[in-house]
Formats: sequence, structure tokens, C-alpha cells
Amino acid sequence: MLEGMRIARFSFNDRPQYAFVQHDDADDKDYLIALDGYPLSAQTVKPTGERHAVDGDGVRLLAPVIPSKVYGLAKNYQAHTAFMAESGMSDITEPPERMMIFAKPSTAVIGPDDPIVYPSYSKQMCYEPEVAVIIGRIAKNVPEDKAMDYVLGFTCVNDVTLRDLQQGDPMWTRSKGFDTSCPLGPWIETDLDYANAPISFSLNGRDVPEASGNTSNLIHSIPEQIAFISSFSTLLPGDVIMTGTPHASGALAPRDEAVVHIEGIGSLRNVVVSA
Amino acid sequence: MLEGMRIARFSFNDRPQYAFVQHDDADDKDYLIALDGYPLSAQTVKPTGERHAVDGDGVRLLAPVIPSKVYGLAKNYQAHTAFMAESGMSDITEPPERMMIFAKPSTAVIGPDDPIVYPSYSKQMCYEPEVAVIIGRIAKNVPEDKAMDYVLGFTCVNDVTLRDLQQGDPMWTRSKGFDTSCPLGPWIETDLDYANAPISFSLNGRDVPEASGNTSNLIHSIPEQIAFISSFSTLLPGDVIMTGTPHASGALAPRDEAVVHIEGIGSLRNVVVSA
Repeated sequence: MLEGMRIARFSFNDRPQYAFVQHDDADDKDYLIALDGYPLSAQTVKPTGERHAVDGDGVRLLAPVIPSKVYGLAKNYQAHTAFMAESGMSDITEPPERMMIFAKPSTAVIGPDDPIVYPSYSKQMCYEPEVAVIIGRIAKNVPEDKAMDYVLGFTCVNDVTLRDLQQGDPMWTRSKGFDTSCPLGPWIETDLDYANAPISFSLNGRDVPEASGNTSNLIHSIPEQIAFISSFSTLLPGDVIMTGTPHASGALAPRDEAVVHIEGIGSLRNVVVSA
Repeated sequence: MLEGMRIARFSFNDRPQYAFVQHDDADDKDYLIALDGYPLSAQTVKPTGERHAVDGDGVRLLAPVIPSKVYGLAKNYQAHTAFMAESGMSDITEPPERMMIFAKPSTAVIGPDDPIVYPSYSKQMCYEPEVAVIIGRIAKNVPEDKAMDYVLGFTCVNDVTLRDLQQGDPMWTRSKGFDTSCPLGPWIETDLDYANAPISFSLNGRDVPEASGNTSNLIHSIPEQIAFISSFSTLLPGDVIMTGTPHASGALAPRDEAVVHIEGIGSLRNVVVSA
């Protein structure tokens, strides 16, 4: 893994580029140092000389990767499994012994500040704040003790779920994979204490303490997840693993502002809009 | 849809290219007419002047598309649903009312003659011959009566499934999405009587009559499938819908030769190898 680097994808006047993110102590602001090249490949990247404030005019952060696929873990925290069963949102009362892996397609991915579109065919859309792992190298049959060598870094993800369809549909393909169901960002942090990362969530500016948690409570650790998934599916650079939501999941409504915050990474903000 | 055209992707001396497939009556052989350009986009493609026999030296057919995602329908024929329940391979005795959609990632796709790798962690790998729809234009919220305008053509698919894991895993992500689980080809036929296409399957050169069927018996038609899937997920050019297997599904073993044949398209052949 690269040491302590933040990698962002952004557009400036609609031209997409990669960048390193640098904090400037002089004005206490984050800046995008535009890069020549693609930091997810082996090639060397170097600054173009362009620098933009993250909140500058014409600057828009994009999802930091375009994954070939996004895998996710369901029921990967004891507190979440108990919450879902107690709230009647799931029939599963104990985390399953085998990892419960589902997938979202690339077309589900959106970036920071992009709208989450509430589909007309659902009446129960829910948030799930999570740590997302970004794969950096082609990974197949990777042993657990080498798994972290294949990781580029981490970002925030909101595993948006249509709870009513998750219970009604025979599979989760629609309820977890609909367009805009995978907000991702704001950037890739290469240096995270991934086994002890605090996750929090706020809705319309108010902290939702029952949705928060810490990756120290993961049932299946991040290296375990990479080892298991790569035992059956080749992970490509840019692929994403959503590691599980720690505790409560609650309803989203049109106009809601959902913010996933992970200490050491930053905040991912999205607003819900009607279809 | 283009009229009566076959589009292939092939490599000649390891260089991948697109081609039209032309039958030459003089020697009764299929030829690849190499193309300059990408026939899945709006751009005009024209022959490069290169022509290769499909079975020529250094010529290898590839999966005709690299999809962003592959959707599949489960339990989409009455005969298959009954077979699976009677053989004890499924607890579902009646086709579900809502379409049962699952997905395979792009990393599952292989081409004609590529090996299907039997994973060491499964003891029951099965074939499922099916008609695959290839999307030609970006499709979102497409009504049923316009659905076929978004189709480029059709090819053969073998929806290879790890039956033991399908029953043991909480989700189908591994059992239907493992590497090499999606043999696709031999080419895209743009002109198929898709509502009346006979599907057959042979194993080691012997016809397996109980695995055969006809798309006239589909529970959810191809236009219905496109309308439903595009109601929640944007389909991109090259994306694939596996329309369902018609009847029996049976075991594959290392060294088996599996051939999916669809009248009007052709044959997709793959050999199983041990991991």
C-alpha cells in the first residue's frame, strides 16, 4: 500500500481526471493536485501542475473508481444482524456461518453529491454506511495473510437498499443493485487503520448514533473477505468490497441528506431525489 | 436490429478484433471478415480486407462481447422448474410470480473453446444451455413494446452453476458468478426468431434430449425481461441477459465437452478442466 495518500477522481469543467488530495494548512482547505496518468495501474503518475480547491468553482468530485463489480457482505456485524431481526426487517437472527456475499453492478455506482434516485416501485429505501475496500492489483486465490497487499485503499460507501423489495423479490439483484444504489467516495485513503475504523452516519445534519460502529466489530475481517471472494472471483484493480454496515439501518425519503463519515477517510454526502 | 448479420470477436495471432461472419458456399466454410471499428457503437465499421477461416491457423473466437454485467433469469420455464423440484435440486416447485433475476460479473465470461474450470470447493457443477440476449443501445425504463429496438442480437450461453453451493451458500454470488461460469458465443446473430428458438445440448458428443427446449415456452418473454430489468438497472451496449434454461440441468465433470446449440445461431463448445 502507498503511505498516507488520498487519491480522488474529479472533473474540472466536465473533464474527468485523477488527483492526489493535499491539505493546505495555510487556509485549512483540501486541494486536488491533478495527475497525468491513471494511479490504479503500475505506471508512474506525476502532477500536471494544476491545483484546484476541492470546493472550487467548476470542480466536482467523482466516484474515485469505476469498478468492474462491487461485492458486499451482508450480516457482517452482530449488532446489525440483531437490529435487523428485532426491527422485523429480516428473518435471520444469527449471522450465517458462511460469508453472505452479494454484488452490485458498475451502473449502481455514483459519486459524492450525486443524487440517490428513489425508485417509484419501492416504498422503503434504507441507508447502510460502510467501509469500502478498493482493490489495487489483480487478485485471485489470495491467502489471508497476503490479502492487504492487493488493496489500494479505502473509501466510504452507502449500501442503499430497497428493504421492501429485498423481502419481496426472490433475489437481491434489484433491491441492492438498482441505479444509484452505490454512492462511493469522497476519495481513496491509502493509509487507514482498517481494523479499527469508526463509522458514523448523519441524516439531515443530525448524527444517527444507532447507525454508527467500528470495523473492530466485523465478524469476517477485511483480509478474510478478500481471501474468500478471490477464491471464486478474480478481483480487478478498482473493484470494491463493501465490508458490511455496523448496526442500525433506517429509512431515507426524498430530499434527505445522507452523510457517511469514516474517521481517517472523510465524508460522503448524497441527497435523495424522487424518480 | 441489423438484418441477418453475424458479429464475432476473434483474435488472430493474439490480436483481438471484431468481424462479420460470412458463409462461403464454395467450400461450405465460415469466414471472419475482419472489421475496422467497434460494431457495438454508433460508428460505421468497414472491412479491413482481412479474411480468416473460423477454424484457420492462429484464429481463435473470443466471447463476442465484454459485458459490464450479465443478468440471468432463474425458473423461467415450467419444465425446468418442475425438473429441478423433482430431482431434489431446488425447493421451489412453482415458478415465482416476480421474475427471479440474478447476475454474473464480467470476470465470469469466457469464449468458445475456453476451458470451464471446475473449482476445487464444489462437488456438483451443472450445465444450463440458454439463449443470451446482447444489448445494443443504452436501455433504461424501456417499455415492452419497444424492448427489441435495444437488442443487437443473440448468442448461446451456458449458465454454469455449482449446484451444491447454490443450495449451501446464502446467496448465488459464488455458485453462479465464479470465474469461467459464463461461456458465451460463438457469435452474435442479429436475426433470430427469438420467440421460437430451439435450444439443444450435447455432452461428449451425445445429445441430451431432456436438456433441450424452445424459447416459445419462456414464462417471461424476452421483451418482458428487458422491460423489467431496465426498470431498475441501466443496460449498456454489450450487456447480456441469460433468458433461462428450458428443462433438465445435469452434472459436468473434468474433461467433459459441453456444447450448447441454438438453431439459427450455432454452437458453443467448452471443455471442463480441473482447477
